Amino acid sequence: MKSAQGDRLISLAGGLPCPSTFPVEELRAAADRVLRKDGSLALQYTNTEGYAPLRAYVAEYFLKPRGIPADPDCVLLTSGSQQALDLLGKTLIDTYARVLLEAPSYLSAIQAFGLYEPTFLSVPATPGGVTPDALEKAFRQRPRMFYTVPTFQNPTGWTWSQENRTAAARLAQKHDVFLIEDDPYSELSYDEAPPPPLASFSDPAGTVITGTFSKILSPGIRMGWIAAPRHLMDPLVRAKQASDLCSNILTQRILFELLAEFDLLKHIERLRKHYRRKRDRMLEWLDKLMPTDCTWTRPRGGMFVWLTLPPGLSGTRLLRATQAYGVVFAPGRSFYAHGERDDTIRLNFTHSSDSDMADGLRVLAREIQRMPVDI
Amino acid sequence: MKSAQGDRLISLAGGLPCPSTFPVEELRAAADRVLRKDGSLALQYTNTEGYAPLRAYVAEYFLKPRGIPADPDCVLLTSGSQQALDLLGKTLIDTYARVLLEAPSYLSAIQAFGLYEPTFLSVPATPGGVTPDALEKAFRQRPRMFYTVPTFQNPTGWTWSQENRTAAARLAQKHDVFLIEDDPYSELSYDEAPPPPLASFSDPAGTVITGTFSKILSPGIRMGWIAAPRHLMDPLVRAKQASDLCSNILTQRILFELLAEFDLLKHIERLRKHYRRKRDRMLEWLDKLMPTDCTWTRPRGGMFVWLTLPPGLSGTRLLRATQAYGVVFAPGRSFYAHGERDDTIRLNFTHSSDSDMADGLRVLAREIQRMPVDI
Repeated sequence: MKSAQGDRLISLAGGLPCPSTFPVEELRAAADRVLRKDGSLALQYTNTEGYAPLRAYVAEYFLKPRGIPADPDCVLLTSGSQQALDLLGKTLIDTYARVLLEAPSYLSAIQAFGLYEPTFLSVPATPGGVTPDALEKAFRQRPRMFYTVPTFQNPTGWTWSQENRTAAARLAQKHDVFLIEDDPYSELSYDEAPPPPLASFSDPAGTVITGTFSKILSPGIRMGWIAAPRHLMDPLVRAKQASDLCSNILTQRILFELLAEFDLLKHIERLRKHYRRKRDRMLEWLDKLMPTDCTWTRPRGGMFVWLTLPPGLSGTRLLRATQAYGVVFAPGRSFYAHGERDDTIRLNFTHSSDSDMADGLRVLAREIQRMPVDI
Repeated sequence: MKSAQGDRLISLAGGLPCPSTFPVEELRAAADRVLRKDGSLALQYTNTEGYAPLRAYVAEYFLKPRGIPADPDCVLLTSGSQQALDLLGKTLIDTYARVLLEAPSYLSAIQAFGLYEPTFLSVPATPGGVTPDALEKAFRQRPRMFYTVPTFQNPTGWTWSQENRTAAARLAQKHDVFLIEDDPYSELSYDEAPPPPLASFSDPAGTVITGTFSKILSPGIRMGWIAAPRHLMDPLVRAKQASDLCSNILTQRILFELLAEFDLLKHIERLRKHYRRKRDRMLEWLDKLMPTDCTWTRPRGGMFVWLTLPPGLSGTRLLRATQAYGVVFAPGRSFYAHGERDDTIRLNFTHSSDSDMADGLRVLAREIQRMPVDI
């Protein structure tokens, strides 16, 4: 995150949305209305679960249309979906519990869960998701839970096929493994729509799905959510109470005030168009600039391209080289729980301007070609 | 908290500020300015440590004037001071670490630390704080840290004497115990000023102080802070990153924009006057209404009166009785890590109207007199 904030830096590192897409004026007007009509309540302590109308909105617009059992009482609003991961770690991970991750998996999930000291197991991610064979083998090691980003995954951009989703749901129930489906990107789909979420057909008592307003509206307001089975709500709410008592009610109310008058679907259409063009731009530049022994993913949504370096090159060392020219990205190593591979890097295409993106990729391509191979 | 939000309830339970004191209009204007001039940055991800000008403000106005080493780089902004407690737990408590608390101590600190599974030790609170003899005896059991609210304590309202503070600072250094000074109330002083904070003369490498804007401006915006020794900043920032990536930057900026034009000292003076009157009102009513075998504290600041019931009465049972008449308070039992005493209750005097307070105390006095003694 720090790299992505510096002054004279070209950053392909973070997962930052493009600030030109934020509905600034609409949020300003919403803030104005909330503080004029309901200021005292919007500035007081509130309940831990979150603002009831906003929980109902999440159920109505994010769960129901996608076939997920939609009870507002089972929605917990969180400080971004990062807090959702932390609360799940707090609630589900005892010391030495086994947590199964895709390899690679989302860096900040590894960090969030890691603080509760589980034993991490991993199962290889593939372009179509985790295969049933690999998953069953991994489930036989008796993980307590399986964390996955099945749609436009961070970091790879890959999306699980319908077949792999169906198999995973069946296997999780068979082996009694808790499914955690992290779903921040499914609205950001640039070609055909992704398959339905795992949570729409897996065992409801053994599945959690998390989402966020960060990627479609604004990350600065820190508003994410968990939809959990009823039996998990009490422990999650207790964990949140111990973590921060309650979420920021001022921004909960501003967000709800915005949503009441805002055409979110139309906004998401605009985002798709904007990011589709950026994704295409990045893929064009990569085709043009990268040496032939590099390979990379061609994501149908989300925010990232995952690039595999020529044999023998290290993403960590490459970062040191490009950093000297003010260009940063996320080395792939940190997306593995045990840092087991260092030959990949993650590139973000949503945040930088076209010219920064091109300049950054030029430096990257040059440094890849310059770098001595590690034998 | 839930009890304090109900519709037809008289709540003396929570630690809610009086909403009439919130600077609603000033915050509305500040939000308007921030979103007009800097909307995109105020809605984007931000750094984990917090908005730099606000960290500098905390150092300049909350630390420096009170003799605490004031380096803005050692200030971490948190989602209310509850998150500060959670991050300290995450950072300092390994399973089975010993954590020393005053008995009674702040309920939500017990909950925050409790999730990291320490062994709780306790040392008796007294009207002048913890005595050196009791503290040394407790320190000999080798706690990793000592958590204290030395000024206008929650729940008792008690304030440590200068002598006990000096002794505690010396003993903590001698026994190598980490001091956590939780200081949400020291601005809310209604008689003479409290003694200087422990953090102004204890070993800086072994002391943390936490504070909050919740009690003096608005709890809804969730803005607290930790001032920590340099060697703790990295682990705390990593813990915060894993917990929620960063705090809400929109409200960080609104708050800073407000503070730039707002006379905070004058506002605090108004709060003191407002709450002093409410404290006096509660003490008058208690004198008038309570049976002679009840005793209670006469706090010189903060938000709470701590009442000891007549011998043989249970605070938990009393709550069930008054609840039937729509009156709630916080039973004292939950303020003990091991629930070891049930003959006390905590009463808040900052939130309810004068007439609600009087009606609530009337019900309370009546039910105390009615209740059968537990032999």
